Amino acid sequence: MEAATEFPNKEAFRQAVVNTLERRLFYIPSFKIYRGVAGLYDYGPPGCAVKSNVLAFWRQHFVLEENMLEVDCPCVTPEVVLKASGHVDKFTDLMVKDEKTGTCYRADHLLKDFCKDKLEKDTNLAAEKIAELKHILAVLDDLSPEELGAKIKEYGITAPDTKNPLSAPYPFNLMFQTSIGPSGLSPGYMRPETAQGIFVNFKDLYYYNGNKLPFAAAQIGQAFRNEVSNPSRITIWLFAFQDGHVWLLMSVEVVVFLLLLISVFEVTFTLSRKKEYGLNMKGKLQISPRQGLLRVREFTLAEIEHFVDPDDKSHPKFSEVAKLEFLMFPREDQVSGKSARRIAIGEAVSQGIVNNATLGFFIGRVYLFLTHLGIDKERLRFRQHLANEMAHYAADCWDAEIECSYGWIECVGIADRSAYDLRAHTKLVIAPVKKELGLAFKGNQKMVVEALEAMEEKEAMEMKATLESKGEAEFRVCTLGKDVIIKKNMVTISKETKKEHQRVFTPSVIEPSFGIGRIIYCLYEHSFYTRASKDGDEQLNVFRFPPLVAPIKCTVFPLVQNQKYEEVAKRIAKSLTAAGISCKIDITGTSIGKRYARTDELGVPLAITVDSTSSVTIRERDSKQQIRVSIEEVASVVKEVTDGLSTWGDVLWKYPTHSS
Amino acid sequence: MEAATEFPNKEAFRQAVVNTLERRLFYIPSFKIYRGVAGLYDYGPPGCAVKSNVLAFWRQHFVLEENMLEVDCPCVTPEVVLKASGHVDKFTDLMVKDEKTGTCYRADHLLKDFCKDKLEKDTNLAAEKIAELKHILAVLDDLSPEELGAKIKEYGITAPDTKNPLSAPYPFNLMFQTSIGPSGLSPGYMRPETAQGIFVNFKDLYYYNGNKLPFAAAQIGQAFRNEVSNPSRITIWLFAFQDGHVWLLMSVEVVVFLLLLISVFEVTFTLSRKKEYGLNMKGKLQISPRQGLLRVREFTLAEIEHFVDPDDKSHPKFSEVAKLEFLMFPREDQVSGKSARRIAIGEAVSQGIVNNATLGFFIGRVYLFLTHLGIDKERLRFRQHLANEMAHYAADCWDAEIECSYGWIECVGIADRSAYDLRAHTKLVIAPVKKELGLAFKGNQKMVVEALEAMEEKEAMEMKATLESKGEAEFRVCTLGKDVIIKKNMVTISKETKKEHQRVFTPSVIEPSFGIGRIIYCLYEHSFYTRASKDGDEQLNVFRFPPLVAPIKCTVFPLVQNQKYEEVAKRIAKSLTAAGISCKIDITGTSIGKRYARTDELGVPLAITVDSTSSVTIRERDSKQQIRVSIEEVASVVKEVTDGLSTWGDVLWKYPTHSS
Repeated sequence: MEAATEFPNKEAFRQAVVNTLERRLFYIPSFKIYRGVAGLYDYGPPGCAVKSNVLAFWRQHFVLEENMLEVDCPCVTPEVVLKASGHVDKFTDLMVKDEKTGTCYRADHLLKDFCKDKLEKDTNLAAEKIAELKHILAVLDDLSPEELGAKIKEYGITAPDTKNPLSAPYPFNLMFQTSIGPSGLSPGYMRPETAQGIFVNFKDLYYYNGNKLPFAAAQIGQAFRNEVSNPSRITIWLFAFQDGHVWLLMSVEVVVFLLLLISVFEVTFTLSRKKEYGLNMKGKLQISPRQGLLRVREFTLAEIEHFVDPDDKSHPKFSEVAKLEFLMFPREDQVSGKSARRIAIGEAVSQGIVNNATLGFFIGRVYLFLTHLGIDKERLRFRQHLANEMAHYAADCWDAEIECSYGWIECVGIADRSAYDLRAHTKLVIAPVKKELGLAFKGNQKMVVEALEAMEEKEAMEMKATLESKGEAEFRVCTLGKDVIIKKNMVTISKETKKEHQRVFTPSVIEPSFGIGRIIYCLYEHSFYTRASKDGDEQLNVFRFPPLVAPIKCTVFPLVQNQKYEEVAKRIAKSLTAAGISCKIDITGTSIGKRYARTDELGVPLAITVDSTSSVTIRERDSKQQIRVSIEEVASVVKEVTDGLSTWGDVLWKYPTHSS
Repeated sequence: MEAATEFPNKEAFRQAVVNTLERRLFYIPSFKIYRGVAGLYDYGPPGCAVKSNVLAFWRQHFVLEENMLEVDCPCVTPEVVLKASGHVDKFTDLMVKDEKTGTCYRADHLLKDFCKDKLEKDTNLAAEKIAELKHILAVLDDLSPEELGAKIKEYGITAPDTKNPLSAPYPFNLMFQTSIGPSGLSPGYMRPETAQGIFVNFKDLYYYNGNKLPFAAAQIGQAFRNEVSNPSRITIWLFAFQDGHVWLLMSVEVVVFLLLLISVFEVTFTLSRKKEYGLNMKGKLQISPRQGLLRVREFTLAEIEHFVDPDDKSHPKFSEVAKLEFLMFPREDQVSGKSARRIAIGEAVSQGIVNNATLGFFIGRVYLFLTHLGIDKERLRFRQHLANEMAHYAADCWDAEIECSYGWIECVGIADRSAYDLRAHTKLVIAPVKKELGLAFKGNQKMVVEALEAMEEKEAMEMKATLESKGEAEFRVCTLGKDVIIKKNMVTISKETKKEHQRVFTPSVIEPSFGIGRIIYCLYEHSFYTRASKDGDEQLNVFRFPPLVAPIKCTVFPLVQNQKYEEVAKRIAKSLTAAGISCKIDITGTSIGKRYARTDELGVPLAITVDSTSSVTIRERDSKQQIRVSIEEVASVVKEVTDGLSTWGDVLWKYPTHSS
C-alpha cells in the first residue's frame, strides 16, 4: 500500500479530505439551499452507504456475536423520564448573553480564550498571575456559575463581537424541547442519548432474558443536542454608502462560495440595510471554525448497556480478547506526564489498571471493531478518565480516542456506570405503617399518612437516613399546621431492587457508547491518500476503504463504447446486484484512466473492465494490479473478496495477472 | 401449511395477536414505567430484528436493484424549509377546546360521531334529516373551519366528557415544534416526512447522477406527527367520601393493570383529591380505543423520490413487471360501487387506468416487495385516490392497502406529484432592469428597485401574471409613499428551472412512500395462526414469517441437559453466528415440546435439536417435519434455507427425514 503523499500541514490535509468528501457528496451541509443550519449535515449517497455498512458490521460484531437484545425506542421522550435521569436539571452549558444584542456565548469558552490569549500574548505577566491563569484553565470544568461569573467580571471580559457587557452565567439546557399532544401541557424533549430507552425497559428485558444476569441490550438511533457554537469569530464588515456597486461586486453568494471552497467553516451572514440613509449597507460575516463534522446537533449513537451483578464483573469470553495489545493511556500516566503505551488488555485487568474483566472485554471488542473498519492501530488509544472527568457514581471509564487532524477525538466511551442509571428510574416506595401511626396520632392519622405519601424523593431519602441513624425524625404536616415526630417503626422507605437467589441488589451497568458519525469521519481521514496520475500532472485522491466499509464494492465499465461490451457490462452488473454486491456501471466515453480515478476517489475496491465478450479484467484499487477472469466467474470472485472470504492476495495466486 | 384456527371475531383475533406481540416483546408501550405516552411504542428485541430485516430487504429490493441514491438527512428541520413545502401552514387538524377544562378534541371527529350516532339511534328522523346527516359524513373532509363550527353550533354538540360548550374550530399544526440554538430565535420542527430532505438536495443529486434524468433518491428515517387522539371515551368515576377503603380496594394500579391485561387500549388516569373535604376522592378513567399500533406519533418512513422528465414517463424496466396481476381498485370502480378486481399492471397502464409506466413500474415493485415479506396476496389491493383525496397538483395516486383486523389500511402511497415539490423549493428570481427603471423613475429609481426586490413570492407571482396579461401593473412603493406603474420591460420575475438540451422544465416527482411500522403490523396479523398442542389441551401461537423476515433464523437446543450435547449446541451456534445467521441457544431443562412452542411463537423458521454428538435434527416450524443432518453440514443447510437459496422442500429431498 502506498504511503499518503505528504501535505504541508494538518489543515491542508483536512482540507483535501473534506473537499473530496463534499465534492463526491459523502456529506452535504443540510438545507444548504436555505443557507444551511450550523451543526446539521446530510449523508449523501456514498456517505449513506458507508454509514449503513458501519452499522451492519456493528450489529454483526456486537448484537449478533454477543447475543444482545436490540431495542428501538422513540426519539420523543416525555419530561418525567429525563427528569429522573438528571438530564432536565444537569444537561446544561453555562451561557452569558451580550446585554445589548442578546447574542449568546458559552461562559467557559470566553474565560478559556481570555486566559489562553493573555498567557500567549502578554509577556509582562507576573509569575503569580501566570500561575493564576493556568490554574483557571486546569479547573475550568469544575467552576460554579458564580465562580465563572466572578472571574468574567474580574477580568473585564466583554462580548467578543461588540465589546458590550455580558450577563451573569445562566444554565442553558442542551436538549431540544417540544410538547407532546395538542394541550401544550405535556413537555417533552428529543432524546440526548439512546440509553434511557433501554433503562426504562430494564424489567421487561430482564424477564425476556429469563430473569438472568448478565445480559446486554443495545440500541442504534438518532440523538439530539442543541449545541452552542461559540468559537472565536472572524467578522467582516462590508459598507456601501450611496452606491450599490460595492455590494454587487462583493455579493454574499460570492463570499460564501469562496469561503466554502477554501474551508469547512460554518458561515452565517446577516445583512442590515438602513433604508433611511439610502443605500447605506452593512454586511457582517461571521466565520465559526467549529469542529466541522465532529460537533453536530443531531447524530447517530449506537449504545450497549451490559447489566451485571455488581459483585461479579467477570466475563466468560474475556480470554478471547485478553492477549490483544494496543495503546492504553491510564490515569496515572496522564497525571505524571507519560505517554500512552502498549499494554495487553489481559495485563491491564490483572494489574487493576482497568477496573474489571467485563469492562476489559468491551475495550478489547471495541478495539477489534474499530481496526476492522480500517482505523489505524497506531492512531487509536484507550484513555482512562481522570478523576474529575468521571461522574461520582462511575467505577471506571475509558474513551477510545482516534487521532485525526483535529487531534485525539473521543469516539467511543466505555464506562462502568455502577448502579446509577437503574436507580434513577427505580420507584420510590413509601409505606406508612397505619397501625403505629394510628396509635400515635389517633384522629390525625390520615393527615400524617397523606403527608408521608406525598414526600418527594429527596425528602424521603433524607428521612430514611435520619430514621436509620437516629431512630426518629421531625416532620412537618402542613394540613395539621405543625411538626410531628416520626419513629422508625411508623414508615418504611425504599427503592425497588432486584432479588436474585434471595440477595437484593441493583445491577451495575457497563456502557459502551459509540459516536457513529465521529468514527466515520476519522475513518475517512485514516483512509485518504493521494498519488500522482499516470502522466504525473496531477495528484489523484484515493480512499483505501476495506471492502466491508466501501460505499460501492465494484464498478463495471466497457473499455470502449460498444454495444457488445455494454451488454456484457450490464449482465455482470445484474449478477453482482443479485448477489447483493452494490456496483455501478460507467458507460461514459471517458478514458479508462479517468474512470479508474473517479472510482478510486469513492473508495471502490474493485473495478471490472470489459475488453472482450468472454473474459474481463478485475483491478484492485490500491495496488492497481489486474487479473483476468472469465465472465462466468467474475461475480463469484468479486463476492469472495468483498465478503472477506479471500484477500486480493489470495485471488492473485489463482488467476493470471493482466498488464494493461 | 395449516389454516389459522377460527376466531369468533376480528377483535378476538387481534387480541390474540397483540397479546402475543406484547408478551414476547415485539412491542413495548414506550416509557411504560412512567405510565407511557399515547402513540409511542418501542420495538423490543424480536420486533427490532424484524424491522431491521424489513429495512435490509427494502434496501436490496429498491436502492440496490434500482441503483437509487440513498441519503440520510436530519430530523430537526428549520422552519423556512417546511414553510416552503407548505407544512407550516397546511399540515393541521381542526380542533375545538372544551371552554372550561381546556381539553382538546378533533372537530371533524365530534361532528362525525354525532352524525353516526344520530343515524344509528334516532329512529324518528325525517328522510330530509337523514339525507342531511349522510351528506355531512360524505363531505366531512372538505368542510372549512367556519362550516364545521357552524354545524357544531347548529347541532348543539358539546364536549363529550363534560358537556361543556366548545370553542370555534382552530387549526392545530401536527408537527412537533422546537427551537434551534440558544437564542430561541430559530424555530424548527421535527420533520413530518423524510421527502423534504431529498427535495432540497435535488440539484446536488442531479449533478451526482451526471445531470441526467430519470433518477431516484431514497431515504429511510424517523418522521414525527403530533397526532391528536380524540376517540369516544369511557369514563369511570370513583368516589370515596370520608373513607379511604374504597380507594384502596380499587386502586389506580389495579384498574390500569386489569385494563392493560385485557386490552390494548390506551389508558390515562387523572385523580384529584379535594383535601378540604377530607378524603373526598374522585377518579376519572378514560379509555381511548386508538388504532393501537397503527396510529403513532413517531414512525419510520422509507421514501423514494423518482425524478423524471414530465414529457416522458416511460420506464426502461416496465416490461419486467408488466405481466404481474393483482387486486386493483380504480377510481371509477369505487365511485360506481364495484369491488377491487385483478388487473395486470401492464393492462392498467395501457388502458390509462394508471397514469404512466413509471408509476405502474413502482406499483409492480411494491407488490413484489410486500408479497416477498409475507403479506397475503388476497388481502392486498392497490386503491386509486378519488379526485377529492388527491392534491390539486397530483397527476395520479395509488395506495397499497393491506387488510387487517382494523379494515383496509393504507401502508404505501405511490403518487405522481407532478412538479409541485421541486417548485416549492425553487428560488424566486426578481431582476429589475435598472436602465428602464432609471429612465422612468430617475432619482426615485433606487427606492423602486428596492421595493421590487423585497416582494414576497405571492406578490411577485401576481405581478408576473398581470404583466404578462396586461403589460403593466400598479405597484405600491412604501418609501415613496405612492403607487407607481411597472411596465413589462422593467423587471423579469421567474422561478429557477432545469435546462436539458435547451428545453426548460421542472422534473416531475413520482413518490412511493412506505409506512414501515404499518407494513410490519399487518405482516404480524397475516403471519399469525394458532394450532392445538400435541396433547390437545391448549392452542399454541405461531408466526409463519418467511426466513427473510424472521427475527431469529434458528434455535439450537440439546434434547436433554448434558454437557456433551451442550458443547455441540454451542459449537453449532458459533458456526451459525459466524455465517451471519442469528440464532438462540435454549439450554433450559424444559420439555422439547415446550421449547418448540416458544420458538414457534417468535416465528423462528428452523430448530436444531442436538440428540447425539455426530448428527442433529432440523425441524421446520410450519410443517413440523424433521430431517437428520451431520454436525459438519448443519450450518450450511440452515444458511441455504434462511438465505432463500433452497426451500425446505428442496432440502427434504436431500436428507433423510426423522420421526420423533
